[in-house]
Amino acid sequence: MRIREVTITPVAFADPPLLNVTGVHEPYALRSILQLGCEDGVVGLGESYGDEDFLVLANKTAESLVGVDIFDLPAVRRAAVAAVGGGIYADRHGLTGGVSADKTLQTVYSFFEVAMLDAQGKLLGRPVVDLLGAKVRDRVDFSAYLFYKYAAHQGFQPDEWGEVLTPETVVSSARKMIDRYGFRSIKLKGGVFPPAEEIAAIQALRDAFPEHPLRIDPNGGWTPATSQWVAKELDGVLEYLEDPTPGIDGMSQVAAVAPMPLATNMCVVEYAHIPPAVEAKAVSVVLSDHHFWGGLRLSSALATMCETFGLGLSMHSNSHLGISLAAMVQLAGATGHLTYACDTHWPWKTQDVIVPGALDFEGGSVAVPSKPGLGVELDPDALGRLHSTYLNCGLRRRDDATYMRRYVPDFEPNTARW
Amino acid sequence: MRIREVTITPVAFADPPLLNVTGVHEPYALRSILQLGCEDGVVGLGESYGDEDFLVLANKTAESLVGVDIFDLPAVRRAAVAAVGGGIYADRHGLTGGVSADKTLQTVYSFFEVAMLDAQGKLLGRPVVDLLGAKVRDRVDFSAYLFYKYAAHQGFQPDEWGEVLTPETVVSSARKMIDRYGFRSIKLKGGVFPPAEEIAAIQALRDAFPEHPLRIDPNGGWTPATSQWVAKELDGVLEYLEDPTPGIDGMSQVAAVAPMPLATNMCVVEYAHIPPAVEAKAVSVVLSDHHFWGGLRLSSALATMCETFGLGLSMHSNSHLGISLAAMVQLAGATGHLTYACDTHWPWKTQDVIVPGALDFEGGSVAVPSKPGLGVELDPDALGRLHSTYLNCGLRRRDDATYMRRYVPDFEPNTARW
Ligand SMILES: [Mg+2]
Ligand SMILES: [Mg+2]
Repeated sequence: MRIREVTITPVAFADPPLLNVTGVHEPYALRSILQLGCEDGVVGLGESYGDEDFLVLANKTAESLVGVDIFDLPAVRRAAVAAVGGGIYADRHGLTGGVSADKTLQTVYSFFEVAMLDAQGKLLGRPVVDLLGAKVRDRVDFSAYLFYKYAAHQGFQPDEWGEVLTPETVVSSARKMIDRYGFRSIKLKGGVFPPAEEIAAIQALRDAFPEHPLRIDPNGGWTPATSQWVAKELDGVLEYLEDPTPGIDGMSQVAAVAPMPLATNMCVVEYAHIPPAVEAKAVSVVLSDHHFWGGLRLSSALATMCETFGLGLSMHSNSHLGISLAAMVQLAGATGHLTYACDTHWPWKTQDVIVPGALDFEGGSVAVPSKPGLGVELDPDALGRLHSTYLNCGLRRRDDATYMRRYVPDFEPNTARW
Repeated sequence: MRIREVTITPVAFADPPLLNVTGVHEPYALRSILQLGCEDGVVGLGESYGDEDFLVLANKTAESLVGVDIFDLPAVRRAAVAAVGGGIYADRHGLTGGVSADKTLQTVYSFFEVAMLDAQGKLLGRPVVDLLGAKVRDRVDFSAYLFYKYAAHQGFQPDEWGEVLTPETVVSSARKMIDRYGFRSIKLKGGVFPPAEEIAAIQALRDAFPEHPLRIDPNGGWTPATSQWVAKELDGVLEYLEDPTPGIDGMSQVAAVAPMPLATNMCVVEYAHIPPAVEAKAVSVVLSDHHFWGGLRLSSALATMCETFGLGLSMHSNSHLGISLAAMVQLAGATGHLTYACDTHWPWKTQDVIVPGALDFEGGSVAVPSKPGLGVELDPDALGRLHSTYLNCGLRRRDDATYMRRYVPDFEPNTARW
């Protein structure tokens, strides 16, 4: 079965003012939605970044795909190689670490790989998890993903989560999120306030949720020395400490004294980073992300690599919609070596492009869909609405720092500022 | 589609008296043939070792498989874990390195995994290569696999290859094998004669075939010091030197001075060996073998791991029949990072269990079959004949050393004897 038509639709969906080390989320998060229209009417779905620079490369890749057999992933890779041409797509916020030609290629390829697997599964009448080795688990655990946040976007009404800038409101937002979704572990996005304040928030979470494993992720906002200090302060409290400081060298300095595992989605974000990170003993947990690790099949191989080298594996999340969540769940369903609950921004969004109901959270986990392909269905009206939002919102690339200056005029994103 | 019936048939096929460091091949090589009979009449095929100890574990695993869905590879793994129970299957010749509980588990699991993938492919109407990411190449290159050999088995007529004990006959057997199959690289199984004689044979091959990449594999028959000397003698002559000496430590001593890459199917034969081998810089090329690396999917992950760590990848061969060759070819067809021609014992056999014609060598390569599944068909009469041979031949495990004593009464297999 061959591809007849490739449609890439940029969309924008409402996103709360969530704070991180580089600034604050803008009123809309951008994503791209891929439809591989095939013979026999099968449509393979994909989802990835919506930044303009990514869309250019994705659209260029798409031009070569009409006529390609939906199993022919090497043809998709060749198309991506030609389209990327050794160029680099930089996401400009740096929250997923450095960029490179290889990471760019894996990112573009992944967009299409997921849609090819969705189409394959639909053609064959099997869920994608079966194409990846079948289910080792029926449900995939996720972590509550807490953010410091402002009450409202500039010029917008407050969202339902309100302002979260203190340990007390961190705890109350955790309570609300856990009541609603049942999460059994908790992550706090840090790097926003001086580390002592964030330590206090983690301590408050520990007091309020004595049984929940806890994580904090300042996106490299601390120096190695500060990170070492935080690690000692939170001894016995964190299940892992995520990207306290930038770079393999800095992380290895922290790892040498930290009593808990260090996790990363910033200093190990492509295959070339694994050997030096292993050699430097820089991290204990890799947060994989199929969007930039080259798709679902390569992410399976990454899991085997982590198992082989004694590294734990969890899953990173950017703001995403239901197609990406379905892909994450299908992959996690087939991944034996997945040693922590995955991240997801899911609770923060109020809109989607898929028909609701396929991916319900219960007890903090999502059942692996058993319908063919990814197991989710595109809602054309919803897609149209979010595409209109994209056209009207004016955003063309994520830029948390510039937007942050509307709240804090002299704000400068600065890794390892503390 | 579920498994209804699991049939494991031990077979024996005529094998020439091929010499190696542990002795000489017996008159018959043992294999096991697996048929997974499924609903709808689909039969998934597998092939692996025929040693009694392997058959015990395989048969025990098979007991739990009736009713299992053919996509449910995790159920097969659970069955293998339960059957193996932490025990160790030792192949008793040591030609594939050490044994362990994990290697045993991966070996038993692989036998069934390949048959599951064959059944999946047949159900879906797709070749196995499509289930592994699809074809990156249409044909798979193999190397001519030369052996020193006796003219005849004890009590048998000479085979068509005659005696090969000198550089001249090594060259003439290479000529014959290359004329017949078109191989474009050459491997000599060494460890049989003092190294100087084997160096002379390689030099003779170099003179006779100036364009063919050359390899020699003494199966760890040399000390590190001897290996270093051989490596220097063959500087500029070998494409790689395979397992000159046993163990990661010994290999790393050789690698430190050898001008050519070192390859192994003995010191890196399970996932736990990779980190220490990488750290010790012991090898540059891994010879993968799906039979003991946990099947086709995990072998794909192994390829990604080798690529990540800058290791080359080739493929190891034991004496095998057509089902294993089909599995090797399907895997190699989907493996981008396959950096050398694969090994095969194929030319040495005169019998098979599959219908001929699916796997023809041309120019030293085999086309990846495009029929559903592995792309080969079992010949029930041939299977019956080779099963009768198994029943009548009396061999129940491979033991090259004991048989060698019928030629050389005081023979002792001894790694690193030179
Ligand atoms: Mg992170
Ligand atoms: Mg070997």
